[in-house]
Amino acid sequence: MYSIDELRAIIKDELDKKEYIQEPHSLFEPILYILEDGGKRLRPLLTLMAYNLYREDIEKVLKSAIGIEIFHNYTLLHDDVMDDAELRRGRLTVHKKWNSNVAILSGDAAAITAYQCIEHCEDKYLRRAIDFFNQVAMDVCRGQQYDMLFETRDDVSEKEYIEMIYLKTSVLLAGSLRHGALLADAPEHEYNALYEFGGYLGLAFQLQDDYLDVYGDVAEFGKNIGGDIVANKKTYMLIKALELADPETREELWGWIEKKEFDHEEKIKAVTRIYDRLGIKEIAFAAIDKYLKMSRDILDKIDVPKERKIDFYETLDAIGNRKK
Amino acid sequence: MYSIDELRAIIKDELDKKEYIQEPHSLFEPILYILEDGGKRLRPLLTLMAYNLYREDIEKVLKSAIGIEIFHNYTLLHDDVMDDAELRRGRLTVHKKWNSNVAILSGDAAAITAYQCIEHCEDKYLRRAIDFFNQVAMDVCRGQQYDMLFETRDDVSEKEYIEMIYLKTSVLLAGSLRHGALLADAPEHEYNALYEFGGYLGLAFQLQDDYLDVYGDVAEFGKNIGGDIVANKKTYMLIKALELADPETREELWGWIEKKEFDHEEKIKAVTRIYDRLGIKEIAFAAIDKYLKMSRDILDKIDVPKERKIDFYETLDAIGNRKK
Repeated sequence: MYSIDELRAIIKDELDKKEYIQEPHSLFEPILYILEDGGKRLRPLLTLMAYNLYREDIEKVLKSAIGIEIFHNYTLLHDDVMDDAELRRGRLTVHKKWNSNVAILSGDAAAITAYQCIEHCEDKYLRRAIDFFNQVAMDVCRGQQYDMLFETRDDVSEKEYIEMIYLKTSVLLAGSLRHGALLADAPEHEYNALYEFGGYLGLAFQLQDDYLDVYGDVAEFGKNIGGDIVANKKTYMLIKALELADPETREELWGWIEKKEFDHEEKIKAVTRIYDRLGIKEIAFAAIDKYLKMSRDILDKIDVPKERKIDFYETLDAIGNRKK
Repeated sequence: MYSIDELRAIIKDELDKKEYIQEPHSLFEPILYILEDGGKRLRPLLTLMAYNLYREDIEKVLKSAIGIEIFHNYTLLHDDVMDDAELRRGRLTVHKKWNSNVAILSGDAAAITAYQCIEHCEDKYLRRAIDFFNQVAMDVCRGQQYDMLFETRDDVSEKEYIEMIYLKTSVLLAGSLRHGALLADAPEHEYNALYEFGGYLGLAFQLQDDYLDVYGDVAEFGKNIGGDIVANKKTYMLIKALELADPETREELWGWIEKKEFDHEEKIKAVTRIYDRLGIKEIAFAAIDKYLKMSRDILDKIDVPKERKIDFYETLDAIGNRKK
């Protein structure tokens, strides 16, 4: 069995081969650029981990795991254009370093490259692999559409928000696991269980991101605290606050949202105080715990020796601890 | 055997079912919009025609033929953003009617929809169908990249231009034919021959488009004559003219290209006169004929009764006649 560090090194080596590059080089240069910025490689890692639950010959799933990472980066390329984002992990986004056309077309090439990678599997898995990948890809697209639709709405419910982040974030994590288990010849109910596990894990992870933006420790979180508050991002925190606030508090919150000129620190403090008053911290905490528990319950039932699942349990614990 | 009109009607009926639409509707509305604007449905038609060379049960290839049409429209959605085009077939482009983000994301959804459609085939064809589709999709992307790269170059050779339009236009026509023949269980050398046939046909068709922009009859061509000249589009005509012109004529031509303010009619007349002087009309004519002949030679060798190929021959004749 491989450790997470070993799997990460294997993914890095495979990416470094750059086998997916085709002519003209300029089409693939932005893909190289976004791929070389590091990132956690969470998705291919989950694919390899899921495969490794059942089998040792992980080289069989490696190319398609890389495909999932390339797919993820394709969504980042296009999302950054749509959000007009300046920076990603501290570096200029592709459409800022080059231009929007480059980000669109190289993104398209990345998506096709992902499809080329994903078909690296035995014939007997091909239809399901492609089917699943199509479903995941479409769900990610749908999630992004809901996210954009929600931007102009002020009545997004918790349920709608959970559905949106499920599609936009969880499904690809879930699909990465399912793909690995499928190619490892896991039984259908097990690869479906891993998909479900990944879905809840993704929800916990995303809610925690929302939570840490408000209550995280700058040094540990590695991002500036309050970025979502400054940008009026419709996070779980804001949606719950708008839902639970009495008319007066709601008005205060909207006052900050609509303010065009403000001191960043002042706004962050004021909104955080409102969250404190409404108990959003505890509510978010509870929601994260709920989804972690749901993941854990599914993981318990996956029928492989417990020692093979240890990295999965540790991942859950890490998310649990990260929130404190 | 089906007539072209019957096949067109079948394609229309299938598109009208709108079975590919998913939630949220707003994600698919722009896809519906661009699909409902008509168009020649040339690609799905070629798929059905190729299938119908060998088999009658064309419903078996219909869903994937629709996928190819949806793929084509995805490329139009993104190309129109990249070219900042105002109109397509007389209607506002998606990014002008909505905005760029809508065109990017709905385009992405259309691409995934195409992949979902293309897998409608028996298992024994699946890997090749997906392989081929990936190759075609990537080639179209590469063609668009070359096209964008050429915009800022003034030394594009005829060979480079032919390669670019081959990738950008021919390959999808060729792939549409190959896909139909593959699913009809045609032997490998025959579906490859149809691919080659489609490649040359596509070149003839694109060169003719370039030709008709200069020498076409407005009433018959249905576009304004000289649009490419006004826009300095690097067509076959312009590339050949720049290649063949003596220094003086070349300077005159560049003068027109670089002029910021000009009378449209005057520029069209002047550039056309240059083309006349250089014999570009006859050169383009000869090139179109060459590619039509290459198509015809391949078609002759396709081993099905001649009466089944009649629509293919008529298509070649129609392109041949269209240029007069």
